[in-house]
Amino acid sequence: MTNKKEIISGIIIIGNEILSGRTQDTNTSTISKWLNSLGIKVQEVRAIPDVEKIIVDTVNELRKKYNYIFTTGGIGPTHDDITASSISKAFNLKYGPHEEAMSLLEKYYKPGEFNEGRQKMAWMPTNANLIYNPSSGAPGFNVENVFCLPGVPSILKSMLGGITNKLVGGNPILSKTINLRTVESEIAKSLSIIQENNRDVDIGSYPFFRAGKLGVSIVLRSTEQIKIDKSNMEIIKFVKEKNIEVIENE
Amino acid sequence: MTNKKEIISGIIIIGNEILSGRTQDTNTSTISKWLNSLGIKVQEVRAIPDVEKIIVDTVNELRKKYNYIFTTGGIGPTHDDITASSISKAFNLKYGPHEEAMSLLEKYYKPGEFNEGRQKMAWMPTNANLIYNPSSGAPGFNVENVFCLPGVPSILKSMLGGITNKLVGGNPILSKTINLRTVESEIAKSLSIIQENNRDVDIGSYPFFRAGKLGVSIVLRSTEQIKIDKSNMEIIKFVKEKNIEVIENE
Repeated sequence: MTNKKEIISGIIIIGNEILSGRTQDTNTSTISKWLNSLGIKVQEVRAIPDVEKIIVDTVNELRKKYNYIFTTGGIGPTHDDITASSISKAFNLKYGPHEEAMSLLEKYYKPGEFNEGRQKMAWMPTNANLIYNPSSGAPGFNVENVFCLPGVPSILKSMLGGITNKLVGGNPILSKTINLRTVESEIAKSLSIIQENNRDVDIGSYPFFRAGKLGVSIVLRSTEQIKIDKSNMEIIKFVKEKNIEVIENE
Repeated sequence: MTNKKEIISGIIIIGNEILSGRTQDTNTSTISKWLNSLGIKVQEVRAIPDVEKIIVDTVNELRKKYNYIFTTGGIGPTHDDITASSISKAFNLKYGPHEEAMSLLEKYYKPGEFNEGRQKMAWMPTNANLIYNPSSGAPGFNVENVFCLPGVPSILKSMLGGITNKLVGGNPILSKTINLRTVESEIAKSLSIIQENNRDVDIGSYPFFRAGKLGVSIVLRSTEQIKIDKSNMEIIKFVKEKNIEVIENE
Protein backbone atom coordinates (compact mmCIF):
# COMPACT_ATOMS: atom_id res chain seq x y z
CA MET A 1 0.00 0.00 0.00
CA THR A 2 1.45 3.34 -0.99
CA ASN A 3 1.18 6.00 1.64
CA LYS A 4 1.02 9.38 -0.05
CA LYS A 5 2.32 12.41 1.83
CA GLU A 6 -0.26 14.46 3.69
CA ILE A 7 -1.31 17.49 1.63
CA ILE A 8 -2.40 20.49 3.73
CA SER A 9 -4.02 23.79 2.89
CA GLY A 10 -5.22 27.07 4.36
CA ILE A 11 -8.21 29.28 3.55
CA ILE A 12 -8.14 33.09 3.77
CA ILE A 13 -11.57 34.75 3.92
CA ILE A 14 -11.08 38.39 2.90
CA GLY A 15 -13.72 40.95 3.80
CA ASN A 16 -14.88 43.42 6.46
CA GLU A 17 -18.44 42.08 6.09
CA ILE A 18 -17.41 38.76 7.65
CA LEU A 19 -15.63 40.41 10.59
CA SER A 20 -18.53 42.78 11.29
CA GLY A 21 -20.92 39.83 11.45
CA ARG A 22 -23.03 41.24 8.61
CA THR A 23 -22.30 38.28 6.34
CA GLN A 24 -22.24 34.66 7.42
CA ASP A 25 -19.31 32.88 5.75
CA THR A 26 -20.35 29.63 4.10
CA ASN A 27 -17.41 29.34 1.69
CA THR A 28 -15.17 27.64 4.28
CA SER A 29 -17.49 24.67 4.50
CA THR A 30 -17.88 24.46 0.69
CA ILE A 31 -14.13 24.58 0.05
CA SER A 32 -13.30 22.17 2.91
CA LYS A 33 -15.70 19.48 1.75
CA TRP A 34 -14.42 19.73 -1.82
CA LEU A 35 -10.79 19.53 -0.63
CA ASN A 36 -11.53 16.52 1.61
CA SER A 37 -12.74 14.65 -1.44
CA LEU A 38 -9.39 15.39 -3.11
CA GLY A 39 -7.42 14.23 -0.06
CA ILE A 40 -6.36 17.75 0.89
CA LYS A 41 -6.75 18.69 4.55
CA VAL A 42 -7.65 22.22 5.64
CA GLN A 43 -5.33 23.07 8.51
CA GLU A 44 -6.31 26.67 9.19
CA VAL A 45 -8.85 29.32 8.19
CA ARG A 46 -8.32 33.05 8.68
CA ALA A 47 -10.85 35.81 8.19
CA ILE A 48 -9.15 39.18 7.69
CA PRO A 49 -10.21 42.72 6.75
CA ASP A 50 -9.89 44.56 3.40
CA VAL A 51 -6.51 46.02 4.38
CA GLU A 52 -3.63 45.62 1.94
CA LYS A 53 -0.83 45.11 4.45
CA ILE A 54 -2.80 42.45 6.33
CA ILE A 55 -3.67 40.59 3.11
CA VAL A 56 -0.05 40.69 1.89
CA ASP A 57 1.36 39.53 5.23
CA THR A 58 -1.22 36.76 5.71
CA VAL A 59 -0.76 35.39 2.18
CA ASN A 60 3.02 35.46 2.51
CA GLU A 61 2.92 33.73 5.90
CA LEU A 62 0.49 30.98 4.92
CA ARG A 63 1.69 30.19 1.39
CA LYS A 64 4.97 29.00 2.87
CA LYS A 65 3.25 26.94 5.58
CA TYR A 66 0.79 25.00 3.41
CA ASN A 67 0.73 23.21 0.05
CA TYR A 68 -2.22 25.28 -1.15
CA ILE A 69 -3.93 28.53 -0.16
CA PHE A 70 -7.43 29.55 -1.22
CA THR A 71 -8.62 33.13 -0.82
CA THR A 72 -12.25 34.22 -1.11
CA GLY A 73 -13.59 37.71 -1.72
CA GLY A 74 -12.27 41.06 -2.88
CA ILE A 75 -12.04 40.42 -6.64
CA GLY A 76 -15.02 42.54 -7.77
CA PRO A 77 -15.05 45.99 -9.41
CA THR A 78 -15.35 48.32 -6.38
CA HIS A 79 -12.80 50.26 -4.31
CA ASP A 80 -12.93 47.69 -1.48
CA ASP A 81 -11.91 44.86 -3.84
CA ILE A 82 -8.16 44.80 -3.31
CA THR A 83 -7.30 41.10 -3.37
CA ALA A 84 -5.76 41.11 -6.87
CA SER A 85 -3.51 44.12 -6.21
CA SER A 86 -2.52 42.72 -2.80
CA ILE A 87 -1.59 39.33 -4.27
CA SER A 88 0.56 41.11 -6.88
CA LYS A 89 2.33 42.92 -4.06
CA ALA A 90 2.74 39.71 -2.02
CA PHE A 91 4.50 38.01 -4.95
CA ASN A 92 6.22 41.19 -6.14
CA LEU A 93 4.55 40.89 -9.54
CA LYS A 94 3.26 43.51 -11.97
CA TYR A 95 -0.41 44.43 -11.37
CA GLY A 96 -2.23 45.42 -14.55
CA PRO A 97 -4.75 44.36 -17.20
CA HIS A 98 -4.45 40.62 -17.84
CA GLU A 99 -4.56 40.02 -21.59
CA GLU A 100 -6.69 36.86 -21.60
CA ALA A 101 -9.05 38.15 -18.89
CA MET A 102 -9.57 41.40 -20.82
CA SER A 103 -10.45 39.61 -24.05
CA LEU A 104 -12.65 37.15 -22.19
CA LEU A 105 -14.67 39.90 -20.48
CA GLU A 106 -14.82 41.99 -23.65
CA LYS A 107 -16.60 39.09 -25.33
CA TYR A 108 -18.80 38.44 -22.26
CA TYR A 109 -20.34 41.94 -22.14
CA LYS A 110 -22.44 43.60 -24.83
CA PRO A 111 -20.62 46.22 -26.93
CA GLY A 112 -20.30 49.44 -24.91
CA GLU A 113 -20.98 47.68 -21.58
CA PHE A 114 -17.35 46.79 -20.84
CA ASN A 115 -16.88 49.93 -18.73
CA GLU A 116 -14.06 50.99 -16.40
CA GLY A 117 -15.55 49.17 -13.39
CA ARG A 118 -15.76 45.92 -15.31
CA GLN A 119 -12.29 46.34 -16.75
CA LYS A 120 -10.95 46.44 -13.19
CA MET A 121 -12.00 42.79 -12.83
CA ALA A 122 -9.38 41.93 -15.47
CA TRP A 123 -6.61 43.64 -13.47
CA MET A 124 -4.46 41.15 -11.61
CA PRO A 125 -0.87 39.87 -11.61
CA THR A 126 -0.37 40.05 -15.39
CA ASN A 127 1.10 36.54 -15.64
CA ALA A 128 -1.47 34.85 -13.38
CA ASN A 129 -3.31 31.71 -14.51
CA LEU A 130 -7.03 32.28 -14.89
CA ILE A 131 -9.69 30.31 -13.05
CA TYR A 132 -12.71 30.31 -15.33
CA ASN A 133 -16.11 31.44 -14.10
CA PRO A 134 -19.04 29.65 -15.70
CA SER A 135 -21.66 31.71 -13.78
CA SER A 136 -20.81 35.36 -14.27
CA GLY A 137 -17.84 35.91 -16.54
CA ALA A 138 -15.23 37.52 -14.29
CA PRO A 139 -12.46 34.97 -13.68
CA GLY A 140 -10.48 34.18 -10.55
CA PHE A 141 -6.78 33.50 -10.82
CA ASN A 142 -3.89 31.64 -9.30
CA VAL A 143 -0.24 32.44 -8.74
CA GLU A 144 1.95 29.52 -7.69
CA ASN A 145 0.07 27.77 -4.84
CA VAL A 146 -2.39 30.62 -4.13
CA PHE A 147 -5.87 30.38 -5.66
CA CYS A 148 -8.09 33.49 -5.58
CA LEU A 149 -11.83 32.99 -5.72
CA PRO A 150 -14.80 35.35 -5.43
CA GLY A 151 -16.82 35.82 -2.24
CA VAL A 152 -20.31 35.16 -3.65
CA PRO A 153 -20.99 31.53 -2.59
CA SER A 154 -22.87 30.35 -5.69
CA ILE A 155 -20.22 31.76 -8.05
CA LEU A 156 -17.37 30.34 -5.96
CA LYS A 157 -19.02 26.91 -5.99
CA SER A 158 -19.33 26.95 -9.79
CA MET A 159 -15.59 27.63 -10.16
CA LEU A 160 -14.14 24.82 -8.02
CA GLY A 161 -14.52 22.17 -10.70
CA GLY A 162 -12.14 24.13 -12.91
CA ILE A 163 -9.33 23.97 -10.34
CA THR A 164 -9.50 20.29 -9.44
CA ASN A 165 -7.01 19.19 -12.11
CA LYS A 166 -4.52 21.87 -11.00
CA LEU A 167 -4.18 20.33 -7.53
CA VAL A 168 -2.14 17.33 -6.47
CA GLY A 169 -4.23 15.59 -3.82
CA GLY A 170 -3.50 12.92 -1.25
CA ASN A 171 -5.55 9.93 -0.22
CA PRO A 172 -9.19 11.06 0.08
CA ILE A 173 -10.18 11.64 3.70
CA LEU A 174 -12.92 9.15 4.58
CA SER A 175 -15.37 9.57 7.41
CA LYS A 176 -18.10 7.73 9.28
CA THR A 177 -20.68 9.18 11.65
CA ILE A 178 -22.34 7.24 14.47
CA ASN A 179 -25.29 8.97 16.14
CA LEU A 180 -26.03 7.82 19.69
CA ARG A 181 -28.88 8.53 22.07
CA THR A 182 -26.69 9.57 25.00
CA VAL A 183 -24.82 12.55 26.44
CA GLU A 184 -21.10 13.14 26.03
CA SER A 185 -20.23 12.67 29.70
CA GLU A 186 -21.58 9.07 29.60
CA ILE A 187 -19.20 8.02 26.84
CA ALA A 188 -16.23 10.31 27.43
CA LYS A 189 -14.02 7.76 29.19
CA SER A 190 -14.60 4.84 26.80
CA LEU A 191 -14.18 7.12 23.79
CA SER A 192 -10.90 8.40 25.11
CA ILE A 193 -9.57 4.83 25.46
CA ILE A 194 -10.68 4.03 21.89
CA GLN A 195 -8.91 7.17 20.63
CA GLU A 196 -5.74 6.04 22.47
CA ASN A 197 -5.95 2.63 20.74
CA ASN A 198 -6.60 4.15 17.31
CA ARG A 199 -4.20 7.03 16.95
CA ASP A 200 -4.46 7.17 13.15
CA VAL A 201 -8.20 7.83 13.33
CA ASP A 202 -9.38 11.31 14.21
CA ILE A 203 -12.33 10.70 16.57
CA GLY A 204 -14.58 13.69 17.20
CA SER A 205 -17.55 13.90 19.55
CA TYR A 206 -20.34 16.44 18.93
CA PRO A 207 -23.45 16.82 21.08
CA PHE A 208 -26.72 17.62 19.30
CA PHE A 209 -30.30 18.49 20.21
CA ARG A 210 -32.80 17.31 17.58
CA ALA A 211 -36.57 16.89 17.73
CA GLY A 212 -36.52 17.62 21.44
CA LYS A 213 -33.93 14.97 22.27
CA LEU A 214 -30.25 15.03 23.14
CA GLY A 215 -27.73 12.93 21.30
CA VAL A 216 -24.06 12.70 20.37
CA SER A 217 -22.51 12.34 16.91
CA ILE A 218 -19.23 10.48 16.87
CA VAL A 219 -17.26 11.22 13.73
CA LEU A 220 -14.39 8.97 12.64
CA ARG A 221 -11.98 10.36 10.06
CA SER A 222 -9.03 8.65 8.39
CA THR A 223 -7.60 8.03 4.95
CA GLU A 224 -7.88 4.26 5.55
CA GLN A 225 -11.25 2.52 5.57
CA ILE A 226 -9.89 -0.44 7.51
CA LYS A 227 -8.89 1.80 10.41
CA ILE A 228 -12.28 3.50 10.48
CA ASP A 229 -13.94 0.07 10.51
CA LYS A 230 -11.77 -1.11 13.42
CA SER A 231 -12.58 1.88 15.63
CA ASN A 232 -16.25 1.70 14.59
CA MET A 233 -16.37 -1.92 15.82
CA GLU A 234 -14.82 -0.92 19.15
CA ILE A 235 -17.41 1.83 19.56
CA ILE A 236 -20.32 -0.47 18.71
CA LYS A 237 -18.99 -2.98 21.27
CA PHE A 238 -18.90 -0.56 24.24
CA VAL A 239 -22.18 1.06 23.21
CA LYS A 240 -23.84 -2.38 23.36
CA GLU A 241 -22.29 -3.09 26.76
CA LYS A 242 -23.58 0.22 28.08
CA ASN A 243 -27.05 -0.28 26.57
CA ILE A 244 -26.85 2.96 24.57
CA GLU A 245 -29.20 3.28 21.60
CA VAL A 246 -27.58 3.68 18.16
CA ILE A 247 -29.78 6.11 16.22
CA GLU A 248 -27.82 5.98 12.99
CA ASN A 249 -24.61 4.38 11.82
CA GLU A 250 -23.97 5.91 8.42
CA MET B 1 -16.15 65.33 21.94
CA THR B 2 -14.00 62.66 23.55
CA ASN B 3 -12.43 60.23 21.14
CA LYS B 4 -11.98 56.89 22.86
CA LYS B 5 -9.16 54.64 21.70
CA GLU B 6 -10.07 51.90 19.24
CA ILE B 7 -10.61 48.59 20.99
CA ILE B 8 -9.80 45.55 18.86
CA SER B 9 -10.33 41.84 19.31
CA GLY B 10 -9.76 38.44 17.74
CA ILE B 11 -11.84 35.26 17.63
CA ILE B 12 -10.36 31.74 17.68
CA ILE B 13 -12.71 28.99 16.52
CA ILE B 14 -11.33 25.70 17.87
CA GLY B 15 -12.43 22.43 16.31
CA ASN B 16 -11.69 19.89 13.57
CA GLU B 17 -15.40 19.86 12.66
CA ILE B 18 -15.16 23.42 11.33
CA LEU B 19 -12.05 22.69 9.24
CA SER B 20 -13.50 19.51 7.79
CA GLY B 21 -16.59 21.41 6.65
CA ARG B 22 -18.87 19.17 8.72
CA THR B 23 -20.05 22.05 10.91
CA GLN B 24 -20.90 25.52 9.67
CA ASP B 25 -19.53 28.11 12.10
CA THR B 26 -22.15 30.68 13.11
CA ASN B 27 -20.48 31.85 16.34
CA THR B 28 -18.26 34.38 14.53
CA SER B 29 -21.26 36.34 13.38
CA THR B 30 -22.94 36.17 16.82
CA ILE B 31 -19.84 37.34 18.68
CA SER B 32 -19.01 40.05 16.11
CA LYS B 33 -22.46 41.65 16.24
CA TRP B 34 -22.42 41.65 20.04
CA LEU B 35 -18.93 43.18 20.12
CA ASN B 36 -19.91 45.87 17.57
CA SER B 37 -22.64 47.00 19.93
CA LEU B 38 -20.00 47.40 22.66
CA GLY B 39 -17.67 49.37 20.38
CA ILE B 40 -15.18 46.52 20.03
CA LYS B 41 -13.98 45.73 16.53
CA VAL B 42 -13.15 42.19 15.42
CA GLN B 43 -9.87 42.40 13.53
CA GLU B 44 -9.23 38.72 12.80
CA VAL B 45 -10.83 35.29 13.06
CA ARG B 46 -8.90 32.03 13.01
CA ALA B 47 -10.29 28.52 12.80
CA ILE B 48 -7.78 25.95 14.04
CA PRO B 49 -7.77 22.21 14.80
CA ASP B 50 -7.95 20.41 18.17
CA VAL B 51 -4.15 20.30 18.47
CA GLU B 52 -2.58 21.54 21.71
CA LYS B 53 0.52 23.17 20.23
CA ILE B 54 -1.52 25.06 17.64
CA ILE B 55 -4.01 26.29 20.28
CA VAL B 56 -1.21 27.39 22.63
CA ASP B 57 0.72 29.20 19.88
CA THR B 58 -2.36 30.89 18.40
CA VAL B 59 -3.62 32.11 21.79
CA ASN B 60 -0.18 33.40 22.74
CA GLU B 61 0.25 35.20 19.41
CA LEU B 62 -3.17 36.84 19.35
CA ARG B 63 -3.58 37.78 23.02
CA LYS B 64 -0.63 40.15 22.65
CA LYS B 65 -1.97 41.64 19.40
CA TYR B 66 -5.53 42.43 20.50
CA ASN B 67 -7.34 43.87 23.53
CA TYR B 68 -9.56 40.81 23.80
CA ILE B 69 -9.59 37.25 22.51
CA PHE B 70 -12.64 34.99 22.41
CA THR B 71 -12.29 31.26 21.86
CA THR B 72 -15.16 28.94 21.00
CA GLY B 73 -15.30 25.17 21.35
CA GLY B 74 -13.37 22.44 23.08
CA ILE B 75 -14.63 22.87 26.66
CA GLY B 76 -16.85 19.78 26.89
CA PRO B 77 -16.20 16.44 28.63
CA THR B 78 -14.64 14.35 25.84
CA HIS B 79 -11.04 13.57 24.85
CA ASP B 80 -11.12 16.10 21.97
CA ASP B 81 -12.00 18.96 24.35
CA ILE B 82 -8.57 20.37 25.07
CA THR B 83 -9.15 24.12 25.19
CA ALA B 84 -8.96 24.44 29.00
CA SER B 85 -5.73 22.47 29.31
CA SER B 86 -4.21 24.33 26.35
CA ILE B 87 -5.09 27.74 27.83
CA SER B 88 -3.45 26.67 31.11
CA LYS B 89 -0.32 25.79 29.15
CA ALA B 90 -0.42 29.06 27.16
CA PHE B 91 -0.46 31.07 30.40
CA ASN B 92 1.79 28.64 32.29
CA LEU B 93 -0.92 28.12 34.94
CA LYS B 94 -1.91 25.08 36.96
CA TYR B 95 -4.61 22.96 35.23
CA GLY B 96 -6.90 21.18 37.68
CA PRO B 97 -10.36 21.12 39.27
CA HIS B 98 -11.64 24.69 39.72
CA GLU B 99 -13.19 24.99 43.18
CA GLU B 100 -16.16 27.18 42.29
CA ALA B 101 -16.88 25.31 39.03
CA MET B 102 -16.82 21.97 40.90
CA SER B 103 -19.31 23.11 43.52
CA LEU B 104 -21.50 24.76 40.88
CA LEU B 105 -21.71 21.57 38.78
CA GLU B 106 -22.15 19.37 41.86
CA LYS B 107 -25.31 21.34 42.65
CA TYR B 108 -26.44 21.36 38.99
CA TYR B 109 -26.51 17.57 38.61
CA LYS B 110 -28.64 15.09 40.56
CA PRO B 111 -26.81 13.16 43.30
CA GLY B 112 -24.72 10.40 41.70
CA GLU B 113 -24.82 12.01 38.23
CA PHE B 114 -21.72 14.15 38.67
CA ASN B 115 -19.51 11.54 37.04
CA GLU B 116 -15.89 11.70 35.86
CA GLY B 117 -16.84 13.05 32.41
CA ARG B 118 -18.82 15.91 33.93
CA GLN B 119 -16.11 16.65 36.47
CA LYS B 120 -13.72 17.24 33.56
CA MET B 121 -15.81 20.28 32.65
CA ALA B 122 -14.70 21.86 35.96
CA TRP B 123 -11.02 21.35 35.10
CA MET B 124 -9.38 24.56 33.89
CA PRO B 125 -6.71 27.03 34.99
CA THR B 126 -7.46 26.81 38.73
CA ASN B 127 -7.48 30.58 39.25
CA ALA B 128 -9.60 31.39 36.15
CA ASN B 129 -12.70 33.60 36.43
CA LEU B 130 -15.86 31.73 35.58
CA ILE B 131 -18.28 32.74 32.82
CA TYR B 132 -21.68 31.53 33.97
CA ASN B 133 -23.84 29.35 31.76
CA PRO B 134 -27.57 29.88 32.17
CA SER B 135 -28.48 27.15 29.63
CA SER B 136 -26.63 24.02 30.60
CA GLY B 137 -24.57 24.40 33.77
CA ALA B 138 -20.97 23.97 32.62
CA PRO B 139 -19.27 27.37 32.79
CA GLY B 140 -16.77 29.01 30.46
CA PHE B 141 -13.86 30.94 31.92
CA ASN B 142 -11.49 33.78 31.33
CA VAL B 143 -7.82 34.35 32.06
CA GLU B 144 -6.62 37.93 31.60
CA ASN B 145 -7.92 39.07 28.19
CA VAL B 146 -8.81 35.58 26.89
CA PHE B 147 -12.47 34.48 27.16
CA CYS B 148 -13.27 30.81 26.54
CA LEU B 149 -16.76 29.94 25.39
CA PRO B 150 -18.43 26.71 24.28
CA GLY B 151 -18.97 25.76 20.64
CA VAL B 152 -22.72 25.05 20.76
CA PRO B 153 -24.24 28.26 19.32
CA SER B 154 -27.34 28.50 21.54
CA ILE B 155 -25.31 27.98 24.73
CA LEU B 156 -22.63 30.44 23.62
CA LYS B 157 -25.30 33.04 22.89
CA SER B 158 -26.80 32.67 26.35
CA MET B 159 -23.43 33.34 28.00
CA LEU B 160 -22.44 36.59 26.28
CA GLY B 161 -24.59 38.78 28.50
CA GLY B 162 -22.56 37.64 31.51
CA ILE B 163 -19.30 38.96 30.02
CA THR B 164 -20.46 42.39 28.89
CA ASN B 165 -19.55 44.11 32.15
CA LYS B 166 -16.05 42.58 32.12
CA LEU B 167 -15.15 44.34 28.87
CA VAL B 168 -14.09 47.95 28.35
CA GLY B 169 -15.64 49.00 25.06
CA GLY B 170 -15.11 51.90 22.71
CA ASN B 171 -17.61 54.03 20.86
CA PRO B 172 -20.28 51.71 19.44
CA ILE B 173 -19.75 51.03 15.74
CA LEU B 174 -22.74 52.44 13.86
CA SER B 175 -23.80 51.35 10.40
CA LYS B 176 -26.22 52.23 7.64
CA THR B 177 -27.18 50.11 4.63
CA ILE B 178 -28.38 51.51 1.31
CA ASN B 179 -29.79 48.96 -1.14
CA LEU B 180 -29.67 50.00 -4.78
CA ARG B 181 -31.10 48.47 -7.94
CA THR B 182 -27.86 48.47 -9.91
CA VAL B 183 -24.69 46.44 -10.45
CA GLU B 184 -21.36 47.18 -8.80
CA SER B 185 -19.54 48.16 -12.00
CA GLU B 186 -22.03 51.03 -12.55
CA ILE B 187 -21.24 52.69 -9.24
CA ALA B 188 -17.64 51.63 -8.66
CA LYS B 189 -16.03 54.90 -9.75
CA SER B 190 -18.36 57.27 -7.86
CA LEU B 191 -18.18 55.11 -4.76
CA SER B 192 -14.42 55.13 -4.83
CA ILE B 193 -14.41 58.97 -4.95
CA ILE B 194 -16.85 59.09 -2.00
CA GLN B 195 -14.61 56.71 -0.04
CA GLU B 196 -11.63 59.00 -0.79
CA ASN B 197 -13.60 62.00 0.56
CA ASN B 198 -14.77 60.15 3.67
CA ARG B 199 -11.76 58.29 4.98
CA ASP B 200 -13.21 57.81 8.48
CA VAL B 201 -16.18 55.89 7.11
CA ASP B 202 -15.69 52.29 6.09
CA ILE B 203 -17.70 51.96 2.86
CA GLY B 204 -18.41 48.40 1.71
CA SER B 205 -20.15 47.31 -1.48
CA TYR B 206 -21.89 43.91 -1.67
CA PRO B 207 -23.76 42.59 -4.71
CA PHE B 208 -26.93 40.58 -4.07
CA PHE B 209 -29.44 38.55 -6.05
CA ARG B 210 -32.90 38.58 -4.49
CA ALA B 211 -36.30 37.66 -5.90
CA GLY B 212 -34.76 37.22 -9.32
CA LYS B 213 -33.19 40.68 -9.42
CA LEU B 214 -29.66 41.98 -9.01
CA GLY B 215 -28.81 44.74 -6.57
CA VAL B 216 -25.99 46.19 -4.49
CA SER B 217 -25.91 46.85 -0.73
CA ILE B 218 -23.72 49.75 0.27
CA VAL B 219 -22.77 49.54 3.94
CA LEU B 220 -21.43 52.60 5.78
CA ARG B 221 -19.68 51.98 9.10
CA SER B 222 -18.25 54.52 11.53
CA THR B 223 -18.36 55.39 15.21
CA GLU B 224 -19.74 58.83 14.31
CA GLN B 225 -23.30 59.26 13.07
CA ILE B 226 -22.52 62.65 11.52
CA LYS B 227 -19.88 61.08 9.26
CA ILE B 228 -22.23 58.31 8.18
CA ASP B 229 -24.89 60.93 7.38
CA LYS B 230 -22.45 62.98 5.30
CA SER B 231 -21.36 60.04 3.13
CA ASN B 232 -24.97 58.84 2.87
CA MET B 233 -25.95 62.25 1.45
CA GLU B 234 -23.15 62.08 -1.10
CA ILE B 235 -24.29 58.62 -2.18
CA ILE B 236 -27.93 59.69 -2.49
CA LYS B 237 -26.82 62.65 -4.60
CA PHE B 238 -24.90 60.61 -7.20
CA VAL B 239 -27.52 57.89 -7.24
CA LYS B 240 -30.15 60.51 -8.16
CA GLU B 241 -27.90 61.95 -10.87
CA LYS B 242 -27.43 58.48 -12.33
CA ASN B 243 -31.15 57.63 -12.10
CA ILE B 244 -30.48 54.56 -9.97
CA GLU B 245 -33.42 53.23 -7.94
CA VAL B 246 -33.00 53.21 -4.13
CA ILE B 247 -34.71 50.04 -2.89
CA GLU B 248 -34.11 50.64 0.79
CA ASN B 249 -32.24 53.18 2.87
CA GLU B 250 -32.27 51.74 6.39
